[in-house]
Amino acid sequence: MADEIAPPANQLAAVSLGNDGSTVQKAQFSNRVLIRTILDRPDGGAKLAGQKIRIGGWVKTGREQGKGAFAFLEVNDGSCPANLQVMVDSSLYDLSKLVATGTCVTVDGVLKVPPEGKGTKQRIELSVVKVIDVGIVDATKYPLPKTKLTLEFLRDVLHLRSRTNSISAVARIRNALAFATHSFFQEHSFLYIHTPIITTSDCEGAGEMFQATTLINYIEKLEQDLIDNPPPTEADVEAARLIVKERGDVVAKLKAAKASKEEITAAVAQLKIAKESFAHIEERSKLKPGLPKKDGNIDYSKDFFGRQAFLTVSGQLQVETYACALSSVYTFGPTFRAENSHTSRHLAEFWMVEPEIAFADLEDDMNCAEAYVKYMCKWLLEKCYDDMELMAKNFDSGCIDRLKLVESTPFGRITYTEAIKLLEEAVAKGKEFDNNVEWGIDLASEHERYLTEVLFQKPLIVYNYPKGIKAFYMRLNDDEKTVAAMDVLVPKVGELIGGSQREERYDVIKKRIEEMGLPIEPYEWYLDLRRYGTVKHCGFGLGFERMILFATGIDNIRDVIPFPRYPGKADL
Amino acid sequence: MADEIAPPANQLAAVSLGNDGSTVQKAQFSNRVLIRTILDRPDGGAKLAGQKIRIGGWVKTGREQGKGAFAFLEVNDGSCPANLQVMVDSSLYDLSKLVATGTCVTVDGVLKVPPEGKGTKQRIELSVVKVIDVGIVDATKYPLPKTKLTLEFLRDVLHLRSRTNSISAVARIRNALAFATHSFFQEHSFLYIHTPIITTSDCEGAGEMFQATTLINYIEKLEQDLIDNPPPTEADVEAARLIVKERGDVVAKLKAAKASKEEITAAVAQLKIAKESFAHIEERSKLKPGLPKKDGNIDYSKDFFGRQAFLTVSGQLQVETYACALSSVYTFGPTFRAENSHTSRHLAEFWMVEPEIAFADLEDDMNCAEAYVKYMCKWLLEKCYDDMELMAKNFDSGCIDRLKLVESTPFGRITYTEAIKLLEEAVAKGKEFDNNVEWGIDLASEHERYLTEVLFQKPLIVYNYPKGIKAFYMRLNDDEKTVAAMDVLVPKVGELIGGSQREERYDVIKKRIEEMGLPIEPYEWYLDLRRYGTVKHCGFGLGFERMILFATGIDNIRDVIPFPRYPGKADL
Repeated sequence: MADEIAPPANQLAAVSLGNDGSTVQKAQFSNRVLIRTILDRPDGGAKLAGQKIRIGGWVKTGREQGKGAFAFLEVNDGSCPANLQVMVDSSLYDLSKLVATGTCVTVDGVLKVPPEGKGTKQRIELSVVKVIDVGIVDATKYPLPKTKLTLEFLRDVLHLRSRTNSISAVARIRNALAFATHSFFQEHSFLYIHTPIITTSDCEGAGEMFQATTLINYIEKLEQDLIDNPPPTEADVEAARLIVKERGDVVAKLKAAKASKEEITAAVAQLKIAKESFAHIEERSKLKPGLPKKDGNIDYSKDFFGRQAFLTVSGQLQVETYACALSSVYTFGPTFRAENSHTSRHLAEFWMVEPEIAFADLEDDMNCAEAYVKYMCKWLLEKCYDDMELMAKNFDSGCIDRLKLVESTPFGRITYTEAIKLLEEAVAKGKEFDNNVEWGIDLASEHERYLTEVLFQKPLIVYNYPKGIKAFYMRLNDDEKTVAAMDVLVPKVGELIGGSQREERYDVIKKRIEEMGLPIEPYEWYLDLRRYGTVKHCGFGLGFERMILFATGIDNIRDVIPFPRYPGKADL
Repeated sequence: MADEIAPPANQLAAVSLGNDGSTVQKAQFSNRVLIRTILDRPDGGAKLAGQKIRIGGWVKTGREQGKGAFAFLEVNDGSCPANLQVMVDSSLYDLSKLVATGTCVTVDGVLKVPPEGKGTKQRIELSVVKVIDVGIVDATKYPLPKTKLTLEFLRDVLHLRSRTNSISAVARIRNALAFATHSFFQEHSFLYIHTPIITTSDCEGAGEMFQATTLINYIEKLEQDLIDNPPPTEADVEAARLIVKERGDVVAKLKAAKASKEEITAAVAQLKIAKESFAHIEERSKLKPGLPKKDGNIDYSKDFFGRQAFLTVSGQLQVETYACALSSVYTFGPTFRAENSHTSRHLAEFWMVEPEIAFADLEDDMNCAEAYVKYMCKWLLEKCYDDMELMAKNFDSGCIDRLKLVESTPFGRITYTEAIKLLEEAVAKGKEFDNNVEWGIDLASEHERYLTEVLFQKPLIVYNYPKGIKAFYMRLNDDEKTVAAMDVLVPKVGELIGGSQREERYDVIKKRIEEMGLPIEPYEWYLDLRRYGTVKHCGFGLGFERMILFATGIDNIRDVIPFPRYPGKADL
């Protein structure tokens, strides 16, 4: 039949040296060797000397030497924070086009151990034999000058900032934490459930919501149509109504006069046409520019879903439907808040991890949260140590120790009531807080950080909060004053996780909804989970960006998500 | 310090029988044993006889026997498609409250080999010693009657449909494919990048978009405010203007009269107040109900991001910024189309997987796509065979063979031009299509399925499409008529993957944008990727739900996503 492309020939295949089993492996789906494959080895790559390979990457720094006879390029391909030193002879290429920061190079070369005593740290470098491809940079125009760039500056260059050491390391750490998340829950037999982004449920007023809508587009089209085809006037409507009446009279007369069936049928047909025309004209006469209204409210029947729809603030309520059928589930997806918040801790779009476990109580919930956070810390120490070293160097010298501490130390666990007592004791001893401390308050960030950073100096789980400050779905404790909620507080960011055992008793949750002044109707489906085959269950939510802040020590949440969204900003 | 909760005592810990190493392992974060742990063993669980365990799950079917002396319950906990048979004696519980379908039970019991010759297939059953928890069901009200339910019926019971065999199997298959996706790309050193959901970029008119907005909320508040505080009339504005004039005159007179500094200062202060009041009144007088307008267009400065924002239709353009820095990356997230499409193949919200590879061309792209699809098929055969058997039984008897075929057979690869030739030959031989076949057309679904299902009978990659039917960012081939695009067509669903090598040449892509009549300005950031250190790169997008349709043989895409969104429907 038709000719088929043969599998690609490996022009520069992996070469086994044989002497010590060292083989440099080619990337798949890309004809080159990843720089990590060369440098991330106990010998720093030295044993690969002699191998001929192709690499590609971007020049971090380049310099001509030997009076322009050759150039040294520090090349990075994103596979690891380290650069490969690449040496190019001037006979191979116009060196001035290679040395600018940001230049992309694809080159064939031979790995060599650099001459000793040059004060270089490199254990291996690439001596180029052929320049394959170059993506040049005009250094005078490049938006990322070679000078030290602040994270704040980089927020206005979103499309290029991943080329910096810091942001690319964050990307690798973020990737590692995401895969660690999936690995953890999959290892524990949790099923990944995609909860909806567009929702018609409100997760108990967790925050201001964005609308997902086509209504504005509908209005724009309607307004244009009303300009192009002005709507009928009242006189037009009246005229159409008159025609209906006249034709009705004709029919009546014919019937009274016992006219022929044909005559009556024809007149009735005319009447029908007039009625349809009238209905159309009357409907169009009611069209108005602006938001469609019905009984004083916006008429969402014209919107895409026929009702008001929002961007989700949490997948919890929906994922509970799967927990109450498949036992152990989790979501990991984007969530949204339309809050006019300009802090370094809030985004309008951020990612949340929300496990939900059936046949489990608050203690199971705390055990799961603790195990999950520890797992992520261990994962980063094992798989991203070089990136973490960069974080320690650039942002927070203590971040590696913090991961080690969290990974190895049991979290503290105290009740809310005990937490208040500890804070009151601190106040009595002279500690000053901006926010008053008394039983019943929602713990402020300063309280949380004092508890975890000063008093416990490790992660701390606070549980059994006053019901008045928590959501209706949290399970009422026997004291009827507190609910089975828990927050995981960690040094550096404060609240990392919030969770609870869910109220599984139909009568109790219904009463709680009513107590809180919420309407029952929108929660009928949620109540069904308690009406039919109810199960003890619990869950929590982890703010994924907060975890990255905690791990890296970076201060601003806008720097740990690739494309941050906040009031006034949604670049790209 | 504060008392800490001791780690939970395992009330019913795992018991090693010792005789053959069989141990039933407890779930973590939930005090029970997963039913899969018991049944998914070569011996069907028989060797676990004698172990005392706790299980939890929902009754699929229950029946009282022995004149009400005991009951048999088929219990499922979602960990696998199989049920565990559970035997309860009437001395332990009111059996009538246990047998209704949907009842949730948590029980302690002893595993036993059922007596032979009862015609039962079970190799092991649980003999209950204690009923721990029951979530009852009133069978007369339960929305999921025991009769065979159609998938269509279940779409109106989204919150409970995961309790059915079919939808829970789909959930496990979907979970498996999601984790297979991450595993595949992570194994190949791709970094998972979270591209934005809310975007101000339009991926080249890939489709109608939803707006993400707070503008409607703004208008509602404004309209209410205008009712509560009617805006100033023209007379009010005029009066305020007069006061400004009068006070201005006073200041002028005082100055002319060389009044004291104190007097002038006081008058100037009065003037300032009048001016501020006037500005405020004038601004409010301009407030109008409805959409805020400026120069005839909607004024988005009042919206959350200060500009019009949408829900993404693809993360490709944004993820390219990371590929052009970190080499191999992928996205996996929700994407949206606000199209009024009521077919069984389209959703308003669906998930896409989009890898992007630097230093790679169209052939690398095809190799990656083929390897990825094969990997997923293999994964399902290895990890979800029991769920696939259920699909084969309920929906598509050929689905397992299809996975095996795809996993083991090289995909066909033909150019678009060859594909057209083959279709023309078929037409010449009498094959009839609804859509005309000629070079330059976009292949219709009927063409794609004929190629893959009839002619090749296996997955087929068609590449090098006419540039006129493809997006501006696809790389122009040397013939200047075609672009380096490729589609992967598979039996059952047609197009599963669409991809291309991206145009990396600045001049060429700029010209293509202009040729297509698109504005340059919104793409300046995208052009920067070609201006500075450009790199040969490629990528593709896989519709995740299409992959599930392909794997399971289910017909309607609304049944393979937990919470389907389509025109008029966004339940929960």
